[in-house]
Amino acid sequence: MTANLLILGTGLIGTSIGLALRGEADVVLDDADEQALSVALSRGAGRRWNGKEKVSHAILAVPPRHVVPEYLRLREIDAARTWSHVASTQTAVQRELESAGVQLTTFCGSHPMAGKEQAGPKAAAADLFQGRPWALCPGPTTTARTVAATRLIAEICGAEPLVLPAPEHDLAVALVSHLPQVAASAVAAALLNDPQAGAAAIRLAGPGLQDTTRVAAGDPELWVDVLSQNAAAVAPLVRALALELARTADALDQVAAGPREDPAGASPAEALRGLLRRGNAGRRLVPLKQGKHDRDFTIVPVGVPDQPGQLAGVLHSAAEAGINVEDVRVEHLVGRPRGVIELLVHASAESHARAALSAAGWDVLG
Amino acid sequence: MTANLLILGTGLIGTSIGLALRGEADVVLDDADEQALSVALSRGAGRRWNGKEKVSHAILAVPPRHVVPEYLRLREIDAARTWSHVASTQTAVQRELESAGVQLTTFCGSHPMAGKEQAGPKAAAADLFQGRPWALCPGPTTTARTVAATRLIAEICGAEPLVLPAPEHDLAVALVSHLPQVAASAVAAALLNDPQAGAAAIRLAGPGLQDTTRVAAGDPELWVDVLSQNAAAVAPLVRALALELARTADALDQVAAGPREDPAGASPAEALRGLLRRGNAGRRLVPLKQGKHDRDFTIVPVGVPDQPGQLAGVLHSAAEAGINVEDVRVEHLVGRPRGVIELLVHASAESHARAALSAAGWDVLG
Repeated sequence: MTANLLILGTGLIGTSIGLALRGEADVVLDDADEQALSVALSRGAGRRWNGKEKVSHAILAVPPRHVVPEYLRLREIDAARTWSHVASTQTAVQRELESAGVQLTTFCGSHPMAGKEQAGPKAAAADLFQGRPWALCPGPTTTARTVAATRLIAEICGAEPLVLPAPEHDLAVALVSHLPQVAASAVAAALLNDPQAGAAAIRLAGPGLQDTTRVAAGDPELWVDVLSQNAAAVAPLVRALALELARTADALDQVAAGPREDPAGASPAEALRGLLRRGNAGRRLVPLKQGKHDRDFTIVPVGVPDQPGQLAGVLHSAAEAGINVEDVRVEHLVGRPRGVIELLVHASAESHARAALSAAGWDVLG
Repeated sequence: MTANLLILGTGLIGTSIGLALRGEADVVLDDADEQALSVALSRGAGRRWNGKEKVSHAILAVPPRHVVPEYLRLREIDAARTWSHVASTQTAVQRELESAGVQLTTFCGSHPMAGKEQAGPKAAAADLFQGRPWALCPGPTTTARTVAATRLIAEICGAEPLVLPAPEHDLAVALVSHLPQVAASAVAAALLNDPQAGAAAIRLAGPGLQDTTRVAAGDPELWVDVLSQNAAAVAPLVRALALELARTADALDQVAAGPREDPAGASPAEALRGLLRRGNAGRRLVPLKQGKHDRDFTIVPVGVPDQPGQLAGVLHSAAEAGINVEDVRVEHLVGRPRGVIELLVHASAESHARAALSAAGWDVLG
């Protein structure tokens, strides 16, 4: 890739792309925010665009609502041969381009599935996209050449390009990220509804509540934007979740009311069982690592005093025994003087792991 | 504690109590299931009850629906002076005792917050209750002596006793465990609703979906029982969650429909912001460890090649530098050749941890 590339917008994503392409392309940068541009330039993400130089490809790394206005402005001066954006929603931008009368032949939407809690060019990193999925969402008339230029950028950034029509992309991120966020926020918010009950509950809380509500700690302003931009895709999923829960509440009410007279009706226990089984099946689809799933793994729990260095000790013993620890959880409970370290290992390695850790003097449980 | 104790029911909980009390009390065991009783006896959880010997205290460690019948049977022969049970729901058992005309003076409900995926006496362990909360739920007329006997057992087992009225207990476990289970199952089940969308979504999935759906892998039969036993407490919480989500879906629909004409109405973005902020506040209540919360901690992310031994290496360096790692997460993504190890450290230790790990040659990110 020797032709020029323009990155418009030197925030976290734009600057990270520039850093990842260093030595691979001649990158020029521009941003309406002179301070952000200076940081990106000083970090070596590219050289300053003079506002006239024509490039082979331009990436519009600006907030979604600025993509179309910036494109129309730059197209006036015929700045690039092909174009892409990196917004987290695709359909809305595509529709806005169409209503502005734009031919989508030289335009490809894209969405790198990478981010950070911090924003801005200071937080940018050349390896931000390494191994991450990068959705490519061409429109119906986008040319192969335009898609190829966009794909090449994703590949040089070390990402895994994945072609998805815009509506499928928007639905996928709604399912995988936006719906879990709404659910986690609502479960966490339920702890506030009855302060007395919430306070008692928290004294009994365990790892289930911790995991289920982890993403509820996310930044509300960021998430209002994300949810609003993808509202059309998220709304029906949240609606369906609400209906599923309303039906579950009906079943629980029936169970609480005691056995029914009508033997022809569906048993409320069967309704609960159905939800739980479908939950099992859905969970089995969730990848833990490189396409591996829950069923491939088993947990080896080790009891340890709740003191510094125990985790390192257990993992050191595991490494010495040649055990590949895929993941690890540390389970603490309120007021608990002793912790449990759960090692996730491949099911076939379980007996070796148990034997080796016991031999090394660890308290392997269960 | 020198007086006799009868444990009726030698499943996971009953046998674990017997093992924990070894050397501390003279424990006699009974179970209608002779095979389970044999395992518990052979593991040293106690000696066989002859069906006549009177004891100071009897623990009814049987499934909730058997508590009252077994109590009435044993009371006939005046087997114990005080009584307790260990069922996961309290109000239903208390009400059943009351309708059987039982005076609750010598009876104390209790619930050790401990369990395992495996059931039965083979999975029992003396340290099952170590550091775990153990709810004590006396009725309005339960004597102090009865509560004290129950509390003593919890204490010898190494648990943290916590007195809670039965309805508060049932609401607390509903909030902290049963509601998150239902929500996680429903979010995981949503991946099945549209198989094509689910398949695309899974290729974009990250740690948010993994955490939010983890407990959805739980055993459906076990959870049908748990939810059914506490249906009266769980139903209104699930109903309220469904309403919260229905309101959120309304707000998302309004956002998707575009700006409204009516400036007097509440902004839908404000409704979303409200949910996310309440989610933040709820999450801050969730204890991570011994009363510490999200706000006390910060994450130090370290990039590593996805190879065996990296986790041990990072934690060894942390231990050598005197860093107390409170928790650790390993973040893998589908197709990602490189992992990120996130160390949870006290916020005050962040800069030291970053400096020490960098000095040890690790790639501390962000």
